[in-house]
Amino acid sequence: MKLVNFWDDQSTLKLGAIDNDRLLDVERLMAGAGAALSAGSTDDLIGMGDEGLAALAARIEEALRDEALAEASALSLEGARLAPCVGRPGKIICVGLNYKKHAEETNSPIPAFPILFNKFSNALTAHEAPVRVPDVTAKMDYEAELAIVIGKTAFNVSENDALDYVFGYCAANDLSARDLQLRTSQWLLGKSLDGFCPLGPWLVTADEVGDPNRLAIQSFVNGEQRQNSNTSDMIFDCKTVVSYISRHMTLQPGDVILTGTPEGVVMGYPEDRQVYLKAGDRVEIRIEKLGELRNVLIG
Amino acid sequence: MKLVNFWDDQSTLKLGAIDNDRLLDVERLMAGAGAALSAGSTDDLIGMGDEGLAALAARIEEALRDEALAEASALSLEGARLAPCVGRPGKIICVGLNYKKHAEETNSPIPAFPILFNKFSNALTAHEAPVRVPDVTAKMDYEAELAIVIGKTAFNVSENDALDYVFGYCAANDLSARDLQLRTSQWLLGKSLDGFCPLGPWLVTADEVGDPNRLAIQSFVNGEQRQNSNTSDMIFDCKTVVSYISRHMTLQPGDVILTGTPEGVVMGYPEDRQVYLKAGDRVEIRIEKLGELRNVLIG
Repeated sequence: MKLVNFWDDQSTLKLGAIDNDRLLDVERLMAGAGAALSAGSTDDLIGMGDEGLAALAARIEEALRDEALAEASALSLEGARLAPCVGRPGKIICVGLNYKKHAEETNSPIPAFPILFNKFSNALTAHEAPVRVPDVTAKMDYEAELAIVIGKTAFNVSENDALDYVFGYCAANDLSARDLQLRTSQWLLGKSLDGFCPLGPWLVTADEVGDPNRLAIQSFVNGEQRQNSNTSDMIFDCKTVVSYISRHMTLQPGDVILTGTPEGVVMGYPEDRQVYLKAGDRVEIRIEKLGELRNVLIG
Repeated sequence: MKLVNFWDDQSTLKLGAIDNDRLLDVERLMAGAGAALSAGSTDDLIGMGDEGLAALAARIEEALRDEALAEASALSLEGARLAPCVGRPGKIICVGLNYKKHAEETNSPIPAFPILFNKFSNALTAHEAPVRVPDVTAKMDYEAELAIVIGKTAFNVSENDALDYVFGYCAANDLSARDLQLRTSQWLLGKSLDGFCPLGPWLVTADEVGDPNRLAIQSFVNGEQRQNSNTSDMIFDCKTVVSYISRHMTLQPGDVILTGTPEGVVMGYPEDRQVYLKAGDRVEIRIEKLGELRNVLIG
């Protein structure tokens, strides 16, 4: 399933499921279904565990066989006002320097352990929502990343079991103000400016993704390709990252993990060719099976 | 006012106000009051802004003049089961190396800008709740810190106005696993283990504290004094920290800022005298006007 949060005409936040170019309003879709499901957002649904997901999946399958049922809950995806595909995660944990060539382009040694830092929820941005370029930075950079969304409470889980705790995946743009990130030893300041964590376009459930470390990952600025790699190039793969974090802190449903970016960020260019992001730029993150996350920067 | 969250006999989370050795159950206290107030926790109350606080303050004043009213809502503080005095902050932002002598004891340069890192909510611990010593660290250290709790949405506020956005203050123990903190360049891993952020004993509203940079701050391990300083020794004082953060990310009601620790942590001792915390140790953080936060470590 591909899931979104969206605002309806009354500006109420609702849960939606994507069916090609249609957005199915889950509240309307579930009306009259055998199993009740009262989920107003992806966060609600994730909190319900396997049962909620199974009830929704069954109803969507029914709707795909019964066009009248689908049509009764369908909106046009094109005109929809999407919210971030995860609403208020308790944690947004980021892994730094997790692709070999990106570590090299930033003149950093290959890490012996995952390097963890964070963003806060003020950074969350929806697919196609504008991101303001803050006046406190002159070095705003993109980073295409695979985001993991946790589905079940995870403490001290093994690498073998780690992916069983994942609800789904989405594309993320780990926007970074390099001047602020490197102003002190700790990166947080340059990572959690308002809007600096676009997520989307939708949240894809784990069953549709399969192995998360076999996905092409790319970024584009104004249509020009900047990053082109594969999640198989991660130094610490998804199961290792989830297990490692869970051995140090309890992961909760809805927590988000950004798994690092491949080479090709502005900071990695020779200094005389570094052109940082500016208002008017259009940034796209494309990940195989997860769709294309698009955001325009504004002044 | 001194505010707490506590669990009642039915294990329902409730808001309480401290009156010496009594805990006033705010729900019961407000029953029959002129102004309604439906706050089940400090988070709820903070979200209500000035009006909620004023209604509660008026009712408490009434109760202090009318013993029958107070008695009808009073519990013994001694037997109460407290929860962390802030429940689910959107952000827990920490300032590193913010006291001159602590920077010196760790052989760090005096920072030119506030060094910001974070903890997540999984780290929150109540006053007198036990903290488990995780088996992934051999270097668990204490850090006495003044915590600021934000009361109003703050973006780009001046230093002059910054303290108007503060709801209140409490003591915090920025527990730190030094081996994990310094395993990579980013400190998060050693800072946000489960239970590593005791807060309390209660949340004291800003009006009772006055200048937050004139408070004695101390820590004790098993009764032995380890830290003894004053918040006047901060490199970046509270108004500067709040203003600085707000120029980079929007602060929301309930957000928590830990303002750094003075000298005297275990890491600052000569190496042959470094005795890190272990199960059975009792750690107390004492801050003038804010009370004494006590936690025992368990294995």
